[in-house]
Amino acid sequence: VRVTLTDALATARDPDARLASTFRLQEFEAIARERMTPAAFDYVAGGAGDETSLGENVAAWRRRILRPRVLVDVSTVDSSATVLGSRVAMPLAIAPMASHGLAHPDAEVAVARAAATAGVPFTLSTMSTRSIEEVAAAAPDGIRWFQLYIQEDRGLARAFTERAAAAGYRAIVLTVDLPVLGIRERDRRRGFTLDVPLGNFAGRTEFAGRTDPKASATDGYAMVAGVREASLVWADIATIRGWTDLPLVLKGILTAEDARLAVDHGADAIVVSNHGARQLDRVAAPIDVVEEVVAAVDGRAEVWVDGGARRGIDLVVARALGASCVLIGRPILWALAAGGEAGVDRALAILREELEVALALVGAATLSGIARTHVG
Amino acid sequence: VRVTLTDALATARDPDARLASTFRLQEFEAIARERMTPAAFDYVAGGAGDETSLGENVAAWRRRILRPRVLVDVSTVDSSATVLGSRVAMPLAIAPMASHGLAHPDAEVAVARAAATAGVPFTLSTMSTRSIEEVAAAAPDGIRWFQLYIQEDRGLARAFTERAAAAGYRAIVLTVDLPVLGIRERDRRRGFTLDVPLGNFAGRTEFAGRTDPKASATDGYAMVAGVREASLVWADIATIRGWTDLPLVLKGILTAEDARLAVDHGADAIVVSNHGARQLDRVAAPIDVVEEVVAAVDGRAEVWVDGGARRGIDLVVARALGASCVLIGRPILWALAAGGEAGVDRALAILREELEVALALVGAATLSGIARTHVG
Amino acid sequence: VRVTLTDALATARDPDARLASTFRLQEFEAIARERMTPAAFDYVAGGAGDETSLGENVAAWRRRILRPRVLVDVSTVDSSATVLGSRVAMPLAIAPMASHGLAHPDAEVAVARAAATAGVPFTLSTMSTRSIEEVAAAAPDGIRWFQLYIQEDRGLARAFTERAAAAGYRAIVLTVDLPVLGIRERDRRRGFTLDVPLGNFAGRTEFAGRTDPKASATDGYAMVAGVREASLVWADIATIRGWTDLPLVLKGILTAEDARLAVDHGADAIVVSNHGARQLDRVAAPIDVVEEVVAAVDGRAEVWVDGGARRGIDLVVARALGASCVLIGRPILWALAAGGEAGVDRALAILREELEVALALVGAATLSGIARTHVG
Amino acid sequence: VRVTLTDALATARDPDARLASTFRLQEFEAIARERMTPAAFDYVAGGAGDETSLGENVAAWRRRILRPRVLVDVSTVDSSATVLGSRVAMPLAIAPMASHGLAHPDAEVAVARAAATAGVPFTLSTMSTRSIEEVAAAAPDGIRWFQLYIQEDRGLARAFTERAAAAGYRAIVLTVDLPVLGIRERDRRRGFTLDVPLGNFAGRTEFAGRTDPKASATDGYAMVAGVREASLVWADIATIRGWTDLPLVLKGILTAEDARLAVDHGADAIVVSNHGARQLDRVAAPIDVVEEVVAAVDGRAEVWVDGGARRGIDLVVARALGASCVLIGRPILWALAAGGEAGVDRALAILREELEVALALVGAATLSGIARTHVG
Repeated sequence: VRVTLTDALATARDPDARLASTFRLQEFEAIARERMTPAAFDYVAGGAGDETSLGENVAAWRRRILRPRVLVDVSTVDSSATVLGSRVAMPLAIAPMASHGLAHPDAEVAVARAAATAGVPFTLSTMSTRSIEEVAAAAPDGIRWFQLYIQEDRGLARAFTERAAAAGYRAIVLTVDLPVLGIRERDRRRGFTLDVPLGNFAGRTEFAGRTDPKASATDGYAMVAGVREASLVWADIATIRGWTDLPLVLKGILTAEDARLAVDHGADAIVVSNHGARQLDRVAAPIDVVEEVVAAVDGRAEVWVDGGARRGIDLVVARALGASCVLIGRPILWALAAGGEAGVDRALAILREELEVALALVGAATLSGIARTHVG
Repeated sequence: VRVTLTDALATARDPDARLASTFRLQEFEAIARERMTPAAFDYVAGGAGDETSLGENVAAWRRRILRPRVLVDVSTVDSSATVLGSRVAMPLAIAPMASHGLAHPDAEVAVARAAATAGVPFTLSTMSTRSIEEVAAAAPDGIRWFQLYIQEDRGLARAFTERAAAAGYRAIVLTVDLPVLGIRERDRRRGFTLDVPLGNFAGRTEFAGRTDPKASATDGYAMVAGVREASLVWADIATIRGWTDLPLVLKGILTAEDARLAVDHGADAIVVSNHGARQLDRVAAPIDVVEEVVAAVDGRAEVWVDGGARRGIDLVVARALGASCVLIGRPILWALAAGGEAGVDRALAILREELEVALALVGAATLSGIARTHVG
Repeated sequence: VRVTLTDALATARDPDARLASTFRLQEFEAIARERMTPAAFDYVAGGAGDETSLGENVAAWRRRILRPRVLVDVSTVDSSATVLGSRVAMPLAIAPMASHGLAHPDAEVAVARAAATAGVPFTLSTMSTRSIEEVAAAAPDGIRWFQLYIQEDRGLARAFTERAAAAGYRAIVLTVDLPVLGIRERDRRRGFTLDVPLGNFAGRTEFAGRTDPKASATDGYAMVAGVREASLVWADIATIRGWTDLPLVLKGILTAEDARLAVDHGADAIVVSNHGARQLDRVAAPIDVVEEVVAAVDGRAEVWVDGGARRGIDLVVARALGASCVLIGRPILWALAAGGEAGVDRALAILREELEVALALVGAATLSGIARTHVG
Repeated sequence: VRVTLTDALATARDPDARLASTFRLQEFEAIARERMTPAAFDYVAGGAGDETSLGENVAAWRRRILRPRVLVDVSTVDSSATVLGSRVAMPLAIAPMASHGLAHPDAEVAVARAAATAGVPFTLSTMSTRSIEEVAAAAPDGIRWFQLYIQEDRGLARAFTERAAAAGYRAIVLTVDLPVLGIRERDRRRGFTLDVPLGNFAGRTEFAGRTDPKASATDGYAMVAGVREASLVWADIATIRGWTDLPLVLKGILTAEDARLAVDHGADAIVVSNHGARQLDRVAAPIDVVEEVVAAVDGRAEVWVDGGARRGIDLVVARALGASCVLIGRPILWALAAGGEAGVDRALAILREELEVALALVGAATLSGIARTHVG
């Protein structure tokens, strides 16, 4: 059991020693708040509407009660798992998030490298600061997935999938819960706009005249508006499915009905997600509907969950309820802001240790030893 | 989809730019608190007894969980609905409230005009600052309803319905939950009395010698006392029903039993309401009894709901539970106090945008696409 | 309907005008805190243990939801009721409490007079400041009950019942939940002892040498210790029952089992009570077990309830659940401390108005019109 | 009934009179906070992870509602019970805890003596400050149990059981919920390590070269790491069972499944425990799973409970749910820090009084009179 944090590694890259005082993912948030602009911090932290779901996403995990078993041999704990056919060091992936450059100049390059070091998949957003190719070059051995927003010009969307496949990304994660942008009042109060460069668009001839890679405040939103696709329907999934041989993941499903449709339309995995509570307020915390979705999918696809996970223990809960991977978002950007790649290294090391200890203490040497009865 | 607030319009009428910083209905409250007298503010804000229900009215909406569906074509979202035979821009109406003059000198004229602009019905109270005719002249094309308190002299009450019909009001909303006035301690502590003019009584010969149109503090309450009708019973509903061909709406019902009686006595619509928690404390939040009432009514009348709605999302929740219209009260008076007609314009624009985004994000291009399964 | 507070009366006796600012029973507490010694205030206010039940007693009422009915003729509301054969102005009685002299020099005389004025029963404690006879003389027409603690010398206890009967008290209320004194930490921290005179013992020859009517600190507790009866058992109830023709009320029952035993042993009424949460912490709030007790008693005795009631609305809730009388304690002592007899007058006037308005607003002209369905 | 605190005794040993102001166990905590180093205080007070379970352990008891019975003869209350064949003054034992020397120089000697005085069992931890033999000599007549951590060298572990038996300890309490150490962030933030002497190891030839009895910070954790046994499995229980004739108690079980296995493997008693919420966060509060365990054990072993008990009333709750003994931990160390042996005397006297009063007030003269129906 690897129960000690790799402090030496983290502190070596932590000149001001702030990282060394972080012992849980939540603690990166305060450092990030100091290091990001208020508007960028709020863009990452904020949610839709009254932010009821934002709080519920975290609270829902905490309501789950573990049922630990004792006197099981846990002298060797193995936290690894298989996700979409890849062996990962723990059943966790970095959630797709726009514009890591808001948090740190190394942006997605730093996070992808830390993910590769930790042995967990990294998901690159269409709206990333660094490009598909740049991130692939920086973390060539890491497991990388590409998150796709569908452009109104479907040819452009297809080109993205081809670039991702060419650059060694192993899955396409299609966001299905952004037909229109949710109302995030923090951004309106701050007058915030995405005014950082968009790496996947910059200097690409196919976007010439369509968007400004260094979008102005207004243009930033215009670009997002251009990206979102209110007319995307289930029938389109077959088309998209045909663009690539990569596994297709549908992200943003919260009901058994849509989960069934997703597998009927060829999804290889479903991410139970409310988009980090950034789209529609007063929806279920994803972990609270995992069981409904797992039952509907009935083993025909992988079920993952996204939203509010903060602890290694959450990975055990997700597994017990039938979700084979947990995507983590905001805490990774906080860690990035707090310490660049070293910050993300530390965040992932904390999660890894927490997961290993949780496995040992619930009495399971491996994740396959986790049963439904491990959660009350 | 109209997803951008009509900021230009609002700011043009907003010399001190306070309106431009409001992004949710609750934010008008703080501005209203500055601009109204403490006693008038508390008269509007207060509730009965311990104000337990006052808080519950708002909290009950927030407990409802939406179940959004994805990959539905929402490229054109239409938030319109039909309410009592009129097409409205959204399934929302301005609740009847006394004495808008407490909030702003333009009083009901401003609110009725903003409602007409927004395409939603406005309900004029018997106890309004401006008269039936004045409001009709100011918003001739708007959908207007008249809220009726029954006078002890039934001839006077009937005369009100005739004035309303003559002035183009499209429904009579009869308040049935004020046999006596609830105990509102804020008013007692402030020594508050309705000392603004009552437009429907001023200069009318039929009230000569009965009330003082500019009632003194004591007289204000005396007039309300004169208006309320503790002896009004179900048998009277048939009489009132016979006074007019306008649809008859009974407002203030909280039980299946009374809902059944209402339709048996010819009500065209029922407003599930606890009078903004101003009458009896510790009653159900209206949204929590909508389903009970809808089941009892069984399609024989429209069921509306009133109390605590603050968000466009609430209109989706109401619809899913079977209520076809939501009445909104206090936030409209706050918006009126904050910015006159422009304030109410902005409040209604916020609700409209919230509703349209909510429809898109739950996966319904129109309200008729909302099903019971959209709420958990 | 009498909906206006008798302010004139109250203010006439309220030289410093503090009473006139009280609009709910809870508001007397702050004034009482100023006017009583800290130790006496805490003796009255405190509860057992962690005071969990102390808070629950009040909170439990607030959780109950009324189901108001409309369009019922409530032009005449009659709040009167019959309790143990006496007609009372409202189904409320003053709970027995020791040593009203802690709150005001007029002590039980003031409270008994105010109760008589208001038409509600007053219960005199064995441990009162003023004697059985003094209180009877001060409020000869009032309905008075006598609360009995059983002395180890049963002859003394019987003598109390005979004095009460002779002085026109109409019932014996036997406390059955004080086999030992509960642990009230506030009193221990304050070093509090009952050091006010005990009117029922002072100057009585039968107690000569047994107690000091002006007990010292230690003696005060010693006397209470002498009063409580840890060996009192059900078989004794028949004996006590035989001492008097007055109705026998057993106070302090919280289970269906004991309620059945109480009626089997001849109780005319049962008070569902946890002794104001002063005896054992973490017991049910009385209102929460009323239905269990009512079902067990099955009409063979009256069921009353005691603990946490603060509002006229509570009397409606109690009635709907089957309790025909509500005993109110601490707020009466607060009102006594705040304004002597005039304070209690005002407290009872507030309750009366609240009850009448609640009856009108739930749609019941009389208490007999209250049904189980009036509470959700 | 002994209802008065033995204040004379306590104050005699309480030169600064702080103890005399403690009336509930929680009050020792504030004094302990002043008298212990911040790191030592936090080591005792802290829990695993977010400390969700730490709070729940206490809260769960408070949610239980007692159902008191009246008119039962409680003139003589007897709080004694039989636990593992020993008669104890109350069904309570001192939980095993490491390094009492962190709280007070008299360490386990003081606590064991106070336990003996109070007639309750004391459990000595393997990781104690004072040795097995020293504690036995100091409290020769007390009921003493020995808590065992299994060393990797099983011979050393067996030697501990033999030393305990030789020194008159009456049971072996085997901790089964520490395969690895839980993550306690307070200790990490403080940089805390167990740097007090470990009495059971000091000067013992069998440990020569294995551990430093006055372990340095790092060594302290190293020693704990050496002690814990991630490979301990059910099959080992038979081996351990064979080392001694003493009763074998398995501590740290939270499920019916493991409870069944425990009795199948010869456990004489089971401690339902989450290790004071120090191992895995988000597990059930022990009292909440007692009934599940009692049902599974079905009388084949004693069931005890550990975690969060603070009141004598909790012993009644535990008994009603089927747990025959309650282990109390942190409050004892707080009391030790606050006043040495006299502090623990007072803490146990408070519990004893609370238990006796609770028995009288629920209507049970003895613990065997407590039934399941005494808890709602």
